[in-house]
Amino acid sequence: MVYERDNIHRLTPYTPGEQPLVADVVKLNTNENPYPPPRAVLEAIHEVSADQLRRYPPPTAQQFRETAAKLHGLSPEQVIATNGGDELLRMAITVYCEPGGRGLGETYPTYSLYDVLAGIHGTTVSQVPLDEDWSVPEDFAAQLNDRGCRLALLVNPHAPSGRLEPLDKLERVARAFRGVLLIDEAYVDFAESDAIPLLDPARGLDNVLLLRTLSKGYSLAGLRFGYGLGHPRIIEALDKARDSYNTDVLSQAAAVAALRSRDEARESWKKVIAERTRLTAALAARGFTVAPSQSNFVLAAPPKGGLSAQALYRALHDRNIFVRYWDAPRIHDRLRITVGTPEQNDALLAAIADITSAARSA
Amino acid sequence: MVYERDNIHRLTPYTPGEQPLVADVVKLNTNENPYPPPRAVLEAIHEVSADQLRRYPPPTAQQFRETAAKLHGLSPEQVIATNGGDELLRMAITVYCEPGGRGLGETYPTYSLYDVLAGIHGTTVSQVPLDEDWSVPEDFAAQLNDRGCRLALLVNPHAPSGRLEPLDKLERVARAFRGVLLIDEAYVDFAESDAIPLLDPARGLDNVLLLRTLSKGYSLAGLRFGYGLGHPRIIEALDKARDSYNTDVLSQAAAVAALRSRDEARESWKKVIAERTRLTAALAARGFTVAPSQSNFVLAAPPKGGLSAQALYRALHDRNIFVRYWDAPRIHDRLRITVGTPEQNDALLAAIADITSAARSA
Repeated sequence: MVYERDNIHRLTPYTPGEQPLVADVVKLNTNENPYPPPRAVLEAIHEVSADQLRRYPPPTAQQFRETAAKLHGLSPEQVIATNGGDELLRMAITVYCEPGGRGLGETYPTYSLYDVLAGIHGTTVSQVPLDEDWSVPEDFAAQLNDRGCRLALLVNPHAPSGRLEPLDKLERVARAFRGVLLIDEAYVDFAESDAIPLLDPARGLDNVLLLRTLSKGYSLAGLRFGYGLGHPRIIEALDKARDSYNTDVLSQAAAVAALRSRDEARESWKKVIAERTRLTAALAARGFTVAPSQSNFVLAAPPKGGLSAQALYRALHDRNIFVRYWDAPRIHDRLRITVGTPEQNDALLAAIADITSAARSA
Repeated sequence: MVYERDNIHRLTPYTPGEQPLVADVVKLNTNENPYPPPRAVLEAIHEVSADQLRRYPPPTAQQFRETAAKLHGLSPEQVIATNGGDELLRMAITVYCEPGGRGLGETYPTYSLYDVLAGIHGTTVSQVPLDEDWSVPEDFAAQLNDRGCRLALLVNPHAPSGRLEPLDKLERVARAFRGVLLIDEAYVDFAESDAIPLLDPARGLDNVLLLRTLSKGYSLAGLRFGYGLGHPRIIEALDKARDSYNTDVLSQAAAVAALRSRDEARESWKKVIAERTRLTAALAARGFTVAPSQSNFVLAAPPKGGLSAQALYRALHDRNIFVRYWDAPRIHDRLRITVGTPEQNDALLAAIADITSAARSA
């Protein structure tokens, strides 16, 4: 018998990027940071005792909240710790979107998980197409208001294009939108600026929530630790929808150590940014059209008249070089390529040269 | 402005048991196992590399699923790994209960988190009072069917009484109930039997889901690792509502090591069971009424005519001995006491003797 709700029964689950089963893969498909996490993280994990594991963890990760608040110049009441950034997305949808309507507003394209989470909750999704250059249309908030959306999701830097919207644009969206604006800053550590100034009480905004994760900037995708920054009333509402002990004692200790090692992490950001510049130029020199990226990936369209993006994706995969491809409107002719180490990026560029010259001579 | 949904705005969040800020507390209030986790758990945690932390974890915790399946004589398709047992409860409510109606059925009293999770989802809760001896009424399923419930939650052994319902009773409920029966076996490691035989395909039941946790039996409350066991179609439906990477690489490694060390964990279960027997007898000798418990706690009513349960709770708290008290119907005259080490239980018994003799002479 079918017991689950119709929306669950019909749901197509999220497809995570492929995790290779063999070791010698050049893995540029899931936007992991290619450099190791700060050294203090492993040390903090090794210091957790059997007795700490035996007892329930601090339910709200108070020490982490204080550490993050200090780092960002906020108060602990503006911070919530979550089991990965994904949990914050799920909680925001649960707290603000009504099942059956008055749901979620987003751009197209965007991070595909948003629609899956909305489907699980059984709420509506309203999509506003991005402009040609992947910028958010000026009437984004007005369109969402017209459709009764209660939560707007903007990933900034944008995925999968890497474009960064400036602060003044984000502020205009927040002021115009009548629900909560969640700015997903998963990739912001690789960008020139962030949206933290919007949380300054002097701006008088009570509807902004920022998502952060340690997965990318701190090289801790395996840890599942994210956090939200927002108005204390937003944090308080989200806190009600949190599983009662949502983060564990190991990840809390590791996350505190990570944020305290921001300077060390920043060295990896600098290296990724330098390689992003080099990779973008090298792809452009080979005829690719590459969107300017403020993230740790680039969205690149292969030269017209040559191999399709899908064919190139497959040929790279055959050579154990993994990038991301979606058979979806507006991005089916592009590859999303995570910025790797210089060696990984060289391997990618060499393989592309090899594949395209083989295709030309075939 | 209030942005959150009405049901969230009105919600009273779950209150976790108090976590002491000072070290010398006899902590018998949150049902933690007083003995350390298996030694292999810390070793497994220390073996996780920086590179594993850097990458996304295996999304479905496949190695854990295989380990758990082998342990319980099931297939991996009958296992789902979760971020604590709480996440399984939340997912089951999301998957099976309709917002606004056709919701959850439970007993009264029961684990108080169930109502909070139903409130977050905005679904209905139907309560069926337990009989005087805390047993489940024979018409439990029929009552839930009448009220259109889609999910029945039975904690077995029961919390807060410790009573264990036998397998044949559970099977009758499963056969009669027209939705999914979730049997919360958080405390089953301390009981004489479990409900795994209900998952045998030969029984022909497709609506049974068991909840397990490593928090109690494996002394890993700080780790947040639980799992569900059920029909493959139930596991598949729950899997759709899982956050895409819901368990992290450290807890997956620790959980595999824990299950493989079941014999070592069992030594702690034996000690807890022996102390449960001794504590029950000692409390009875002091005039308490103690429900027969198959769990790692006892529900004890102080002798009539003496100090109230609430007064005793407070007097114990003043002496840094923490037990659990609820000002709620049918249990306001009782204390729920976690079974501790012999030394902790002796300290509790001595304090009770001291407090009651002081009260008599006052």
